[in-house]
Amino acid sequence: MTTRFEFSIQARDGAARTGTIAMARGTIRTPAFMPVGTAATVKAMRASEVRAAGADIILGNTYHLMLRPGAERVARLGGLHDFMGWSGPILTDSGGYQVMSLSTLTKRSEEGVAFASHLDGSKHMVTPERSIEIQRLLGSDIVMAFDELVALPAERPVVEAAMQRSMRWAARSRTAFDALGDTGAIFGIQQGGLDERLRAESAAALTGIGFHGYAIGGLAVGEGQEAMFGVLDYATAQLPAEAPRYLMGVGKPDDIVGAVRRGVDMFDCVLPTRSGRNGQAFTRDGPVNLRNAKHAEDKAPLDPGCACPVCNGPSRAYLHHLTKAGEMLGAMLLTEHNIWFYQQLMADLRAAIAEGRLEAFAEGFLARYRQG
Amino acid sequence: MTTRFEFSIQARDGAARTGTIAMARGTIRTPAFMPVGTAATVKAMRASEVRAAGADIILGNTYHLMLRPGAERVARLGGLHDFMGWSGPILTDSGGYQVMSLSTLTKRSEEGVAFASHLDGSKHMVTPERSIEIQRLLGSDIVMAFDELVALPAERPVVEAAMQRSMRWAARSRTAFDALGDTGAIFGIQQGGLDERLRAESAAALTGIGFHGYAIGGLAVGEGQEAMFGVLDYATAQLPAEAPRYLMGVGKPDDIVGAVRRGVDMFDCVLPTRSGRNGQAFTRDGPVNLRNAKHAEDKAPLDPGCACPVCNGPSRAYLHHLTKAGEMLGAMLLTEHNIWFYQQLMADLRAAIAEGRLEAFAEGFLARYRQG
Repeated sequence: MTTRFEFSIQARDGAARTGTIAMARGTIRTPAFMPVGTAATVKAMRASEVRAAGADIILGNTYHLMLRPGAERVARLGGLHDFMGWSGPILTDSGGYQVMSLSTLTKRSEEGVAFASHLDGSKHMVTPERSIEIQRLLGSDIVMAFDELVALPAERPVVEAAMQRSMRWAARSRTAFDALGDTGAIFGIQQGGLDERLRAESAAALTGIGFHGYAIGGLAVGEGQEAMFGVLDYATAQLPAEAPRYLMGVGKPDDIVGAVRRGVDMFDCVLPTRSGRNGQAFTRDGPVNLRNAKHAEDKAPLDPGCACPVCNGPSRAYLHHLTKAGEMLGAMLLTEHNIWFYQQLMADLRAAIAEGRLEAFAEGFLARYRQG
Repeated sequence: MTTRFEFSIQARDGAARTGTIAMARGTIRTPAFMPVGTAATVKAMRASEVRAAGADIILGNTYHLMLRPGAERVARLGGLHDFMGWSGPILTDSGGYQVMSLSTLTKRSEEGVAFASHLDGSKHMVTPERSIEIQRLLGSDIVMAFDELVALPAERPVVEAAMQRSMRWAARSRTAFDALGDTGAIFGIQQGGLDERLRAESAAALTGIGFHGYAIGGLAVGEGQEAMFGVLDYATAQLPAEAPRYLMGVGKPDDIVGAVRRGVDMFDCVLPTRSGRNGQAFTRDGPVNLRNAKHAEDKAPLDPGCACPVCNGPSRAYLHHLTKAGEMLGAMLLTEHNIWFYQQLMADLRAAIAEGRLEAFAEGFLARYRQG
C-alpha cells in the first residue's frame, strides 16, 4: 500500500473546517469520528455494521493487539484489515497511552517503556522504533508517533520534560517510519499539558520534523471540558492549517461540537461503544439510561428522529428489558445506535460548516442536548 | 389472530415426513428447528438475523418471560411479536420445565406448582390455567399444555403418577385454551419416561383430548441418545400420524437426524446459541472448539461449504482471537453460524425426505460428522 494522503479543505466556518482525506483504502470525510476497535473489533459490532453507520475510518489499539493476537501474527494473517474484515483506512495509536495506563511494572527511560502485560504478566519493551514497527506489521494506514503520557494535574517541569522527550520520540518515530519505505501516513502528537508555551514549543518541534497530520495529545485525561477547550482555543492554531488535526480520546457529543468549532478534524472515543454496553444511549435530547424503570412500558423508539436501524425498530421498553436482563442483544443494539448517533452528528457538523451555519447548528444542538 | 393450523405432509420416507404447517403468521417448513428466544431474544442475534438464517418459527420461554418483563406487561406492549420484532409464528413452552429446574422452593400439588423466582425470590404459582393465560398474554401462536417434569432415572410409580397428573393438566390446559376463544394452536405433551406402556397410555389420553400437535416430553434429560431413540422408535407411532410431532429440547445434530428418521417434525434446543457463546461451532465435520490454539493462524473459514455470512467472511484465526479475548463479536458470529448450520441441516433433511433418499443422506451426514 503506497502512501496517498491528500487532505482537502472544502469549506471553513470560523476556526472549523470540513473536507476529505483521500487515502489508498478510502476517503475520510472530516470532521470525522473514528469508532474504536480495540482488539480488532469495534465491540459488539460487525465491521459491516460499523461501515453502514457511516464510519470511514476506525482506530485499532497497538497495545492490545501487540499482546493479543500479537503484531507478527496479525502480519502473517495478512494484516488487520483482512483479519477483521474492515477494508477502509485504519488508524493505530502508538500504544503509549495504554502501556502507561493499563500495564504494570512500567519503567520509563529515554529508550522507551518496559512493562508487564495486563493479560499474562509477560514482559515487553516498547520504543518509538518498536511502536512504528508494530503499527506497520498491523498494516495501519495512519501510524501515530510514540509519546509519553503525563497524568494531569502535574507540575510544569514534569509536563515539560515529558513533552520534550515526546518530541525526541516523535523524531525517532518519523525516522523509523521513513526507514520502512513509502507506506501510509504518520501523525505527530502535540503535548504540553495545559501550558500554552509548552504547546507552542511542541507544535514547533513537530512541524520541524514534519507529519501528515497532527494530534493534540494529553487532553481528556480528567482536566474537564472548560480546561480542554481552553487549550484548544490556541492549540489548533499552533498546528499547521493545511494538515488534519486529531483530538485523541474525545469525547462526549458536546466535547466534539466544541472541538470542531475550535478547528479539530478527527476524533476517537470508546464512549459510544462502552456506553452501549452499559445501557446508555446518546440522543439529540441528551443521554438516555435505558436501565431506568420509566422506560419499562414506553412503546416509543429510542430517538424518533434517528435514521439508525435500532430507532426504526424496537421500543424503549424492549431495550429496557434487554438491558435489565443483561442480554447481549441490548449491548449490540445500543452500541449500534450510539455509533450511528456519533456518525450522524459528524455528518450534521460537516453540513453545517459547508453551509456556513456552524454556530447556529452548534447552539441549537447543545441547547437541546443539555436540556434533555 | 384467528386459528389457522394446517399441517400438510408433502412426502414420506420411512417413518420420516416433510411438509408444512400453515399458520396465520407464516408457514413452518417441517422438519423444523426452532431457535430458542428465552427472554424475548435469541441470544446474541437480531430477529432479522434469525429470519435470514432460515428459521420459520422461534420458541419463547414462558417461565422467563412471566418473571421478566412479565406477561401482562408484554400484553400491554402489544405482545411478544411486536416486543421483540419477530413477525413469524412463536411457540411458547408451558413454563413447567423451567419452573421445576430453575426456580427454588417449588411445591407441587394437583392444583399446580408454587415456586420462588430465581431472579428475585418473589413467590408465584403456575397452574395449567395460568400457564395458558400467560402464553395467551404473550401472544403465542402455538401454546403448550402445562405438564409435570420428572428427572430420569425415576421409579416407575413416580413416572406413572407424573404422567397421569400431566394428562389431567393437559385436559385442564385444553379447557382453558378453548375458553379463550379461537386463537392459535395448542399442543399436548406425551410423558411416560422410558416406558412404552406409559407412553401409549399418555398418547391415548392426549389423543382423546385432542390437540393441534403433540410433543414428546420428558426426554433429553440425561437418558442418553440410545435410550432416547429407543423411546422414539415407538413413541412417534403412538401419536396421530396427521399431526406434527415435536421433540422438546433436542438436540445435537446427530440427535436431530436420528429423531427425524423416527418421524419427528419439530425441534428446539439452546445448543446452537449456548455453544456459540462458549466458542463452539457446529460444522459438517463435527463440532469445532474455536478456543483451541490450533486455529490461531488458520486463515480458512469455519466451514467452507457453509452458506452463512460468517463462513463467507472471517478466518478461523479471527474467530479464535475473538473467542480467546472474550469479545462479544465472537459470540455473535458463532451463534449466527450455528443457527445457520441447524437451519441448513433441516433444509437438507427436508430435501432428502422429499427425494426419498433420507437414509443415504443420514448415513453420509453422520459418518462425516462423527469422524470430524
